[in-house]
Amino acid sequence: MDYPSKLVENAVNEIARLPGIGKKTALRLVLHLLKEKDSTTHALTDALNELRDHIKYCRLCRNISDDDICQICRSPRRDKTVLCVVEDTRDVMAIENTAQYTGLYHVLGGVISPLDGVGPDELNIDLLVQRLSAEENEVAEIIFALSATMEGDTTAFYLTKKLKEFNLKLSTIARGVPIGGELEYADEITLGRSIMGRTEYNHN
Amino acid sequence: MDYPSKLVENAVNEIARLPGIGKKTALRLVLHLLKEKDSTTHALTDALNELRDHIKYCRLCRNISDDDICQICRSPRRDKTVLCVVEDTRDVMAIENTAQYTGLYHVLGGVISPLDGVGPDELNIDLLVQRLSAEENEVAEIIFALSATMEGDTTAFYLTKKLKEFNLKLSTIARGVPIGGELEYADEITLGRSIMGRTEYNHN
Repeated sequence: MDYPSKLVENAVNEIARLPGIGKKTALRLVLHLLKEKDSTTHALTDALNELRDHIKYCRLCRNISDDDICQICRSPRRDKTVLCVVEDTRDVMAIENTAQYTGLYHVLGGVISPLDGVGPDELNIDLLVQRLSAEENEVAEIIFALSATMEGDTTAFYLTKKLKEFNLKLSTIARGVPIGGELEYADEITLGRSIMGRTEYNHN
Repeated sequence: MDYPSKLVENAVNEIARLPGIGKKTALRLVLHLLKEKDSTTHALTDALNELRDHIKYCRLCRNISDDDICQICRSPRRDKTVLCVVEDTRDVMAIENTAQYTGLYHVLGGVISPLDGVGPDELNIDLLVQRLSAEENEVAEIIFALSATMEGDTTAFYLTKKLKEFNLKLSTIARGVPIGGELEYADEITLGRSIMGRTEYNHN
């Protein structure tokens, strides 16, 4: 595409580097910003610069935080005996939104993925081990809430080995047919797994 | 949604003001930027600030330009007797991409849309009149390439009245069934218009 101005071309190229945004969308956004007052653009760029320069991660769980230790780790109401291991902040937010979980988190910052050059050392795994070795540690159960992909499973497997010495109760979130999902639309692997991992009814 | 940090919340809100981007996408972009080096974010914000602060519009046609007068208006190869009136820069780019048009442009900066509070005074219409009144003006034909909407038609109608005194050949781009489109999929209005505006075959 030929752009009428170097400035436009440059801005389009930078926006189009974001995931899921192509050049056409980027151009639409650029022209939108040009139509709006400059304060709109400056508010956006200031927010992004502020974010990138001043973001902090919780010293304990590595979740994004405004403080040295995040609200969840600090809260006296959270159950400090359960730890949920997740990939990133978005997963913490998703689980928090369910309002079903009252324990703590540990954010890995990714999953093991040799194809993308992500090994165990790139993740916050040492920090997890440190955390569990600490004197004040009360964790008795770890829940892996990782993606149901090869990478997620590999990571869970690696962690299981790594955490063996701590003698903790380990579990992974249930895989199966989604609530509201009809059997005939579930794929074979999910359906197969949900039969394998069936839960028993309690006759009480 | 509860964000783990004010910085994230702020950035998400600013990004989500862009057209077509919701809070979920904004959060995904924010987390992406946090995963990348800070130089990625700074390159993006610098490009946007540069764009907004230093953008120029061609003195003649009001198209986005790096210079005082844009490449198209400056080019000796363009046919200075034809002028194509368009809504915005994207339309200029679209028409340039066809490589079918060699005349000049005039960018209105929008279309008349009372519902959005856009009247004729908000558009670059006076500039068009000035341009046609100028001594060096060679324009003999004006093509309206505006959207086939109520607003586009209203704008074309307004301009037709406004430009009456110049005694120019006025035309609008053809409306009809798109090339490669099958008749049965064309809507009634388009099909009706394409019958009304049929083009005669030349028996030569």
